[in-house]
Amino acid sequence: MLPAIKWESDRVSFLDQRLLPEEVKYVTCRDYRQVKMAIKDMVVRGAPAIGIAGAYAVALATMEAAQNGPRAKNAIEVQEFLRLAASDIKAARPTAVNLAWAVDRVLNKTLAAFASSGLTGAVETAVSEATAIEREDLEVNRKIGEYGASLIKPGSSVLTHCNAGALATGGFGTALGVIRQAWKEKKIARVYADETRPFLQGARLTAWELLQDGIDVTVLVDSAAAYLMSLGRVDAVIVGADRIARNGDVANKIGTFSLACLCRYHNIPFYVAAPLSTLDMNIPSGRFIPIEERPETEVLEFRGKMIAPKGAKAFNPSFDVTPASLVSAIVTEKGVIFPPFEENLSQIAR
Amino acid sequence: MLPAIKWESDRVSFLDQRLLPEEVKYVTCRDYRQVKMAIKDMVVRGAPAIGIAGAYAVALATMEAAQNGPRAKNAIEVQEFLRLAASDIKAARPTAVNLAWAVDRVLNKTLAAFASSGLTGAVETAVSEATAIEREDLEVNRKIGEYGASLIKPGSSVLTHCNAGALATGGFGTALGVIRQAWKEKKIARVYADETRPFLQGARLTAWELLQDGIDVTVLVDSAAAYLMSLGRVDAVIVGADRIARNGDVANKIGTFSLACLCRYHNIPFYVAAPLSTLDMNIPSGRFIPIEERPETEVLEFRGKMIAPKGAKAFNPSFDVTPASLVSAIVTEKGVIFPPFEENLSQIAR
Repeated sequence: MLPAIKWESDRVSFLDQRLLPEEVKYVTCRDYRQVKMAIKDMVVRGAPAIGIAGAYAVALATMEAAQNGPRAKNAIEVQEFLRLAASDIKAARPTAVNLAWAVDRVLNKTLAAFASSGLTGAVETAVSEATAIEREDLEVNRKIGEYGASLIKPGSSVLTHCNAGALATGGFGTALGVIRQAWKEKKIARVYADETRPFLQGARLTAWELLQDGIDVTVLVDSAAAYLMSLGRVDAVIVGADRIARNGDVANKIGTFSLACLCRYHNIPFYVAAPLSTLDMNIPSGRFIPIEERPETEVLEFRGKMIAPKGAKAFNPSFDVTPASLVSAIVTEKGVIFPPFEENLSQIAR
Repeated sequence: MLPAIKWESDRVSFLDQRLLPEEVKYVTCRDYRQVKMAIKDMVVRGAPAIGIAGAYAVALATMEAAQNGPRAKNAIEVQEFLRLAASDIKAARPTAVNLAWAVDRVLNKTLAAFASSGLTGAVETAVSEATAIEREDLEVNRKIGEYGASLIKPGSSVLTHCNAGALATGGFGTALGVIRQAWKEKKIARVYADETRPFLQGARLTAWELLQDGIDVTVLVDSAAAYLMSLGRVDAVIVGADRIARNGDVANKIGTFSLACLCRYHNIPFYVAAPLSTLDMNIPSGRFIPIEERPETEVLEFRGKMIAPKGAKAFNPSFDVTPASLVSAIVTEKGVIFPPFEENLSQIAR
């Protein structure tokens, strides 16, 4: 698997996920503002991956502060610059809490290092903290994979939505990490991938990732999932998450909530796989998760060409919220959490 | 509104629904085999519309028999030719029962006319019967519109799927007929149109039709319907049908069943609008409705360009079956049918 994110001493490159699988091309950013745009434009996407990207963006901002000569070396100005850069980066996309989590983690460590050892120490710390976040994420995903695979019964056909794979993380993936591990354990017969309109993460990214690992994958339009379930061809649904509220409500790619309703109707388990960095214990329920609405053109056009007639409007929420009551279990790096989520999440989050 | 189907003495033309709204172009058929291909390739689509197309195809086949000289004038050969042509036309698409219904209706009348007054009478009858089917369908849709509008509460936001409009019928539409009528009665605040992958009938055709009538329309990806409902922004869902079984199970465009499940979860009424020609009293339930699976490329490619990676498979059912238990009411030209459908449909079908 090609990495979604590559850090090289003074720049970070992203495998351009708008072009895959047709084109394999990296976009290189040497400035945190470029990273912000790469996140905003979905060159890099997926909650853990944009967290890592944001972490490297803070590292780039710290380097910029270090290079900016005497003026920026005024301690208050440096702190101000880093804080503003961090909040700018966090504003790139509002829903995934991993972005804010990773940016704040690097920012806080960097500010502490700056206070104790100046800009040189700050740069070192920013880079090593961002690198740590990336490395830890891979570790976390492997653990999620192992815990999650224990939920999959041998011979299962599993349906997933969007791409919660290596491309969306530091590697291995959350939902696809579970699928990879369960496939390795010979528990999975086949994977169904919702195409995931409008960005087609399923058809383009998940299918691409799974085929590279030799995993049997069949793409379907998002609206066909109900029919597939009614044919008895889905044993479990597993998805990633962009933010999980304290009560277990899950924000994830638009269409996730739809799948969860269909699972309930068909009595199929609905699993969410996510690192604890996706958990937002500060909000009581999904009602408080900001849901990004993206440009109407993402729905009305396809590759720059209009699909819909001129004058048509579009509703384009990028995420939806699945109520905790529809979630069978949440797979984290610390184990599988079952309902009641409010209680069990707060225990594991400690 | 441009008509979806135009009959002109010895040919039938179809507004090419693969190209709308980008291009407005008619495809002209002078041979029933061309009509069959136009149905198969979805130049013309929608259950009532392919019924009308099939009816005209039988008329073209009858003209062909009349023009074929002495050999075809052998009575048994003529009958055989017409029967084979009819079953060939019916094989174009398996799910919508309207196709078989219309073809058989024209065939039977034509064979009777042939027996009593030879080929000249047969041609006259075939053409006038096909024309009658088209004309009646428009009438039927206006009645469906009126009955259906009575179900819509003032100020409603209505969601529809696929295109059950003028383009899918002899004019006015079934589900869109209800919407048109309710809009005229000022009961509808706005219409949401599922884009309806993979053929995008919603984004391309429904949005185009409604905009032409000045009806406020917002397109969304199919998977966003659940989230829209959870925001309280959908007061009713109304769709067409390709075949309704004796027990009220409804085959319609893939994604319909998904919507019906979501309506149940959100306690939103789910209405089906269809002429009685869509009713198949010969089958006890939806389990017996043949569900067409279309080429994988319709999902894996977009306008001839691959979306998914090479090697990916696709599941591409064109329809699904919504169990009667999820249907709030079926709107027909004879009135609104409520559950229990088995009983109430058999009464109206008499």
